[in-house]
Amino acid sequence: MKPSDKAPSEKALVPFVSVDHMMQLIHHIGVEEMMSGIAGYIEDDFHRWELFDKTPRVASHSEVGVIELMPTSDGEMYGFKYVNGHPKNTKEGLQTVTAFGLLANVETGYPMLLSEMTMLTALRTAATSAMVAKHLAPKGADTMAMIGNGAQSEFQTLAMKAICGLKSVRLYDIDLAATEKCAANLAAQDIKVVICKTPEEAIEGAQILTTCTADKQNATILSDNMVGSGVHINAIGGDCPGKTELAAGILQRSDIFVEYPPQTRIEGEIQQLPEDYPVTELWQVITGTAAGRTSERQITLFDSVGFAIEDFSALRYVRDQLEATGLYHALDLLADPDDPRDLFGMLQRAAPGNA
Amino acid sequence: MKPSDKAPSEKALVPFVSVDHMMQLIHHIGVEEMMSGIAGYIEDDFHRWELFDKTPRVASHSEVGVIELMPTSDGEMYGFKYVNGHPKNTKEGLQTVTAFGLLANVETGYPMLLSEMTMLTALRTAATSAMVAKHLAPKGADTMAMIGNGAQSEFQTLAMKAICGLKSVRLYDIDLAATEKCAANLAAQDIKVVICKTPEEAIEGAQILTTCTADKQNATILSDNMVGSGVHINAIGGDCPGKTELAAGILQRSDIFVEYPPQTRIEGEIQQLPEDYPVTELWQVITGTAAGRTSERQITLFDSVGFAIEDFSALRYVRDQLEATGLYHALDLLADPDDPRDLFGMLQRAAPGNA
Repeated sequence: MKPSDKAPSEKALVPFVSVDHMMQLIHHIGVEEMMSGIAGYIEDDFHRWELFDKTPRVASHSEVGVIELMPTSDGEMYGFKYVNGHPKNTKEGLQTVTAFGLLANVETGYPMLLSEMTMLTALRTAATSAMVAKHLAPKGADTMAMIGNGAQSEFQTLAMKAICGLKSVRLYDIDLAATEKCAANLAAQDIKVVICKTPEEAIEGAQILTTCTADKQNATILSDNMVGSGVHINAIGGDCPGKTELAAGILQRSDIFVEYPPQTRIEGEIQQLPEDYPVTELWQVITGTAAGRTSERQITLFDSVGFAIEDFSALRYVRDQLEATGLYHALDLLADPDDPRDLFGMLQRAAPGNA
Repeated sequence: MKPSDKAPSEKALVPFVSVDHMMQLIHHIGVEEMMSGIAGYIEDDFHRWELFDKTPRVASHSEVGVIELMPTSDGEMYGFKYVNGHPKNTKEGLQTVTAFGLLANVETGYPMLLSEMTMLTALRTAATSAMVAKHLAPKGADTMAMIGNGAQSEFQTLAMKAICGLKSVRLYDIDLAATEKCAANLAAQDIKVVICKTPEEAIEGAQILTTCTADKQNATILSDNMVGSGVHINAIGGDCPGKTELAAGILQRSDIFVEYPPQTRIEGEIQQLPEDYPVTELWQVITGTAAGRTSERQITLFDSVGFAIEDFSALRYVRDQLEATGLYHALDLLADPDDPRDLFGMLQRAAPGNA
């Protein structure tokens, strides 16, 4: 009956990175530097792809949105992300996507990190896009069309700048206010920003075409005749059943690269294609066991849906910054009695008056 | 660019119940009263069983344990629990099971409650056992054999006392120190406690036989010849593949009741039986669409593995206590910019020097 029983033991405390701490961390490291760092962790984990436990995310669909759990493990650490997708939220002043995530020790099952992931998902999604574009975009690509200027657009632009040497971004959105918001946010970021009135204008002279729109429907953000040869398409927004952005004709003219085929066939642009349509797994390009871009005139398409391993990498990155920065709280998440069999005794000793 | 942007908005804050707050809540309400309350919520949700999204838990197995996610939804609220099971942890001074859980709003996908669930799982497991025993145990049952005197044993005993009118508990564990710990914890709880030297002695005169041991193996805690007619078996410990407690002969003489057959056939005692062996779903007993106990001499067996809906019910119960008790923190878990499309702007406005 040590009095110290009443204070949580160290094992009971889990480092927690709040939104405020995450923003402090991003500013401390720098947003471009942090996305470069995360891209490095993601690339490392794509190199180790085969040893991960992989499963399509566990989704709970409703009429207005989806709530998903995305678990994975490399055998030493286990991670998962909670994430929702509710396109109609924007109209109610809420985020379309909110997320948080966890890392745990496989050996003990004890959580090691709980973190906000709304901000972090924005960084990891952009970091993944840019890491992939580094492998697939035409040599010397320095201009990107950014179609859809919502919450992801600035991060996509700055990750492409930091990782692929992007010099110019051409913005288009059906809502001019979104484009103006994005342009204002990028004004001081040392990149040329062009506001465009049509998607056709946005893709003029661009070697990288990024689509990132939010409507939960089969839309045609890029039609077949808009896309010429020698480009890399970075398709972000088609990421759940019934939600796509590209005309099927574009897919048929492209070489298609995906994260995890069983998930992408359900959620990505390729849900428009037959189930056995050939695609290349990105980890094989990164490890050199499959070809990436093989000619200047080729259209490469990254059919991005977001995979659990990328969140795992991002959480690993954040965890590795904690000690040096101290940007976390210790959260009293786990009951940890001195004698593990004595949970009830721990409860009794916490009774009021037992001080 | 309101300065108030820098303080998290109310929508960004999620109520968090720490271990300390959970223990305060249990003492505020009373452990027996709280288990009775949770049992009521579980029984209500078993009445609504058919409208829940149900899925076997998503498990990540390693050589030393398992990490699981247990999601469910009633269409209005979504809940999930993170829980590990590492029997070898006890030897290292760690909990076999730690857990936390979440409730979210299906309409928006926004989390509504994050809570420790190591303590809460102990309460909900015992509450479920007692709620089921209320339906299945022989009339007038007032004596329980408690075999396995670990972290769950005191909660099982007190839930049976509060909900089924238990008057006497007979304790047995292969480790006498565990039994003595349990007996000491129950000494002031107004119930007769008998320390037994053998499992045979523990079941003498008991109408409820509870097994709750932790070894991850096919063990025989109760052998066939130990179990006579007219008892209710509450089998808690057989709860993952390769981990059972009862001799197959007992199962064959019993009427078997389960939570969710697809999960119990993988994890429960009935993993020892053919896949089509008849079992009764508890929700049907509770709604009156299937028979429970039909004779005094019958052996009823609750093959308990723990199901997501019970955690959902327990989280609902906790959430309903927050307003009156104030026993929670507001956790800065969600990024919530004034303009949902302007996550980057929210980040920029949080830059140091932008005070």
